[in-house]
Amino acid sequence: MVTKLLPANLIEKLQAQLGQDSVVTEVSRLEVTSRTCIPYREVPDAVVYPTSAEQVQAVVRIAREFDVPIWPVSTGKNWGYGEKTACYPGGITMILERMNRIWQVDEELGYAVIEPGVSYKQLNDYLKEHGSSFWADTAGTTQYASVLGNALDKGRGLTPYADHFGCLCGMDVVLPDGRLLETGGGPQGNNQIRHTYKWGVGPYLDGLFAQSNLGIVVKTGIWLMPAPECFDFAAFEYTASEEKFGAFIDDLRKLVFQGALRARPHLANDFAMMCIFSQYPHDLLSGARFLSEEAAAAWRKQYGVARWTFGCGLYGSPEEIKFQKRAIKQALGRYGLIRFVGMAIQENWRGQVFRKLAQLGNKLLGKADAFYEAMIPAINLFRGIPTDFFVRQAYFKSYNEKPVGDIDPARDQCGFIWIGPVVPFTSKHATQALDLAKPIFKQHEFDFFVELIVESARSLILLAGVFYDRNDPDEADRARAWYQDMHDAFLRHGYPTYRATTMKMADALDQNPVAKDMLASLKQALDPQNLIAPGRYGTPTRERR
Amino acid sequence: MVTKLLPANLIEKLQAQLGQDSVVTEVSRLEVTSRTCIPYREVPDAVVYPTSAEQVQAVVRIAREFDVPIWPVSTGKNWGYGEKTACYPGGITMILERMNRIWQVDEELGYAVIEPGVSYKQLNDYLKEHGSSFWADTAGTTQYASVLGNALDKGRGLTPYADHFGCLCGMDVVLPDGRLLETGGGPQGNNQIRHTYKWGVGPYLDGLFAQSNLGIVVKTGIWLMPAPECFDFAAFEYTASEEKFGAFIDDLRKLVFQGALRARPHLANDFAMMCIFSQYPHDLLSGARFLSEEAAAAWRKQYGVARWTFGCGLYGSPEEIKFQKRAIKQALGRYGLIRFVGMAIQENWRGQVFRKLAQLGNKLLGKADAFYEAMIPAINLFRGIPTDFFVRQAYFKSYNEKPVGDIDPARDQCGFIWIGPVVPFTSKHATQALDLAKPIFKQHEFDFFVELIVESARSLILLAGVFYDRNDPDEADRARAWYQDMHDAFLRHGYPTYRATTMKMADALDQNPVAKDMLASLKQALDPQNLIAPGRYGTPTRERR
Repeated sequence: MVTKLLPANLIEKLQAQLGQDSVVTEVSRLEVTSRTCIPYREVPDAVVYPTSAEQVQAVVRIAREFDVPIWPVSTGKNWGYGEKTACYPGGITMILERMNRIWQVDEELGYAVIEPGVSYKQLNDYLKEHGSSFWADTAGTTQYASVLGNALDKGRGLTPYADHFGCLCGMDVVLPDGRLLETGGGPQGNNQIRHTYKWGVGPYLDGLFAQSNLGIVVKTGIWLMPAPECFDFAAFEYTASEEKFGAFIDDLRKLVFQGALRARPHLANDFAMMCIFSQYPHDLLSGARFLSEEAAAAWRKQYGVARWTFGCGLYGSPEEIKFQKRAIKQALGRYGLIRFVGMAIQENWRGQVFRKLAQLGNKLLGKADAFYEAMIPAINLFRGIPTDFFVRQAYFKSYNEKPVGDIDPARDQCGFIWIGPVVPFTSKHATQALDLAKPIFKQHEFDFFVELIVESARSLILLAGVFYDRNDPDEADRARAWYQDMHDAFLRHGYPTYRATTMKMADALDQNPVAKDMLASLKQALDPQNLIAPGRYGTPTRERR
Repeated sequence: MVTKLLPANLIEKLQAQLGQDSVVTEVSRLEVTSRTCIPYREVPDAVVYPTSAEQVQAVVRIAREFDVPIWPVSTGKNWGYGEKTACYPGGITMILERMNRIWQVDEELGYAVIEPGVSYKQLNDYLKEHGSSFWADTAGTTQYASVLGNALDKGRGLTPYADHFGCLCGMDVVLPDGRLLETGGGPQGNNQIRHTYKWGVGPYLDGLFAQSNLGIVVKTGIWLMPAPECFDFAAFEYTASEEKFGAFIDDLRKLVFQGALRARPHLANDFAMMCIFSQYPHDLLSGARFLSEEAAAAWRKQYGVARWTFGCGLYGSPEEIKFQKRAIKQALGRYGLIRFVGMAIQENWRGQVFRKLAQLGNKLLGKADAFYEAMIPAINLFRGIPTDFFVRQAYFKSYNEKPVGDIDPARDQCGFIWIGPVVPFTSKHATQALDLAKPIFKQHEFDFFVELIVESARSLILLAGVFYDRNDPDEADRARAWYQDMHDAFLRHGYPTYRATTMKMADALDQNPVAKDMLASLKQALDPQNLIAPGRYGTPTRERR
């Protein structure tokens, strides 16, 4: 069965430009492709897989001719944020995963030029195979996620190059009129600095294509991090009393300002750690919908998990590493246990011995083997080496066991959803944000899952998430209500989210009417038919025609 | 005499809103105010000095009513780039120097919130008076220049926070329709992270207001640098042979990538150094318009100036400073003389002794006293302490002696003009750029003045300048022709300039027609009457009505 909602000659034109294989209209395939983890999903009328900028331009021109909207995604692996679904039913979904060329890696100037289909794994493998002296940052998500897609949605990594959008420099963008824009000022076609100098001449336009629908980015430069002379890794567990948490946050900020902490760690709460180490203990629920304080404490104790845990790469010369270790010990020693375990990744005998000792040490500290198993993947994340080890947590509640390979929680119908309000990096704001979040979890009967992501020395992202059963309409309703309440409560306190899920995109800028109007004017100017991702991030929606 | 070119009731309305004192129409004052250093100038019909965002909004609304363009400048001290002149005759020039409030300095989160009239001196004085643990970056220009204006025009500083535009976070902008935009997503009026998190929700809009005319920025957050635990200063003089210069550039880049060189130094060529140390030796010209190789060499030798010189702050913990010194010595020792002279700024007896020794050392090395006099101001620039010591070079050719106080080269009719093409930070591009520039100076009979500014690990700005006699029409013509030839030659090689002078603004984006068209669409959408700075940075000009 194929969809009947689009004119046959539109489909024919798409097929003529892209090839049969790259235009999908079978209802069953559309259904699978548009599956989500979030409690929201729309099915498109067609999915297209262009392989080049020219094909993207052709699709835009055809869509314009037939006045059909296009929802572009890179690979759509932003699990828990919206995946491949549009924020409206029907239309054409454009998946750019087959545009996966690495055009260039500049070993002198430290950048790569990539297409939207290039994954973290592919970029990292490429660098390693070519003996590059640069590292790519990676996100904590699947290694098959799009580097470009994540960056455009302001995703975050863990190394000093964690600000993915900030590392983009010089884009090729297909505009809604089908023309190809080279950002970075010019001269078009011969701009030697478009991947080395961000701001170009005149207004800086790249920002218009982040979390937006003003164009389709089909290629970008992205800065790579020079491999440091030395690397180490600090593992930290918060063991101090709760009332010291504020002081801990302030001391952590000072470390970041000082440059003693150059990575961008995630401080995971106990439940967030347990999602990695375990399956959900349904047997401990005793009829409730979330774990009681006592049940959670027992479960936590069984694994030896602290209230807060983070790991963090150290980078630099021997002198710099020495300083970083000294400063971290001085600042954080009073709040918990710090272990420097970077040696674990060494492939020589020292590494072997270290790993054995670490395993033994864990046991002596009463920690589950899972701690040890997570160590190497965790350290590697801070070296830009992606992994699917952690993203398996998506299966933590909905399945009996996490899968080993071929992870696709959207396809496999794992239900979870993220929200990431940004808060100033101070004790006052961090504790206020946690105090705000906790009762909302309780009210909607979800377990309290939160990570504090060090965005910079100035901001934290409070990443909160719930796991729910997609097949239970009540659970899905609760998940939606939880999201709405979190969103509203944080906005009321002046903490906007760093990204929006597709299900709540249309109101992303409601709280800033002047910005919303301005953006609508820009959208109208560049895309008068409202063809590209209508409604994305607060721009006007369009009626289905 | 007052200008008759604007309707009397327009002037009356402006005066009613701003006060008599803030609306200037006397022809003689308009003439003085619009003076420039560049060989181009237009006289406005009126100059207004609003003191608040509300007054800026009022002026915009009045200008719209009368359909008169507004050319906004912060303080207009961008000497050699365009000063306060518009790129068209007449209209209203809006000078924001009386909007000079420092709204806030956040000592936890390291930012200030300032208006366009806040100068480097004012911000630095404020921080010092309040015992701040943060430093403001400063530009090499006058201490009375606008922090915000320089940042919006992508000006550069010298510390690790040298990227002035990159340090802006969260703006208030008066849009062409008179509304006030708060960037940073929202919630408007209560966004706790607008000065701590750059990207906000949805597209990043701040970039639209850099080198542009889409709005008037009336307030901004700007990030401040945490004062380092230790500070030192490296002074370097290039003494190796010319053929080693390429290798030197590559080694310098590696130091920046490594983080051993965190400042953003300017590598000054011999002539650029001499402008600081001396007056122009008119007596050595012997009839020519620029110094012969021999005359320049003799003059240089007299002062003990090397082919290339730079100074550079070191920042960090004791361990980090140790590393930086080691790495700089290792990498650059083979190319010249390195001296670490940070101790010179200490106010204790060690500092005193060090200064005496430095003075003596200079003499022994055959260097002029001017070297010693420049040392403290140079070091201070790398601590964010502004100075008028170096900007006095503007008077180097046109006057017999540099003034001590009250420097205003535009008012005093010093003729000079800058152009700053950006090149990738490699030996190949740096030498090609120098080889490109040198013959153009010779062709137009100017002395070869060039600085290589370390923009980042990835780009250099080749800052080139000429000094000319504004009262000599032939010299002004030669300066204009030099600028045009430099501009064209560098663009032809793919090296666009980091900013445009007002006299060549209208063609700033000619080499990127898609970007130029897109920007014209955005301008049309936000400013359909083309009221705000028409023609700035490649947007459409307008006819005088």
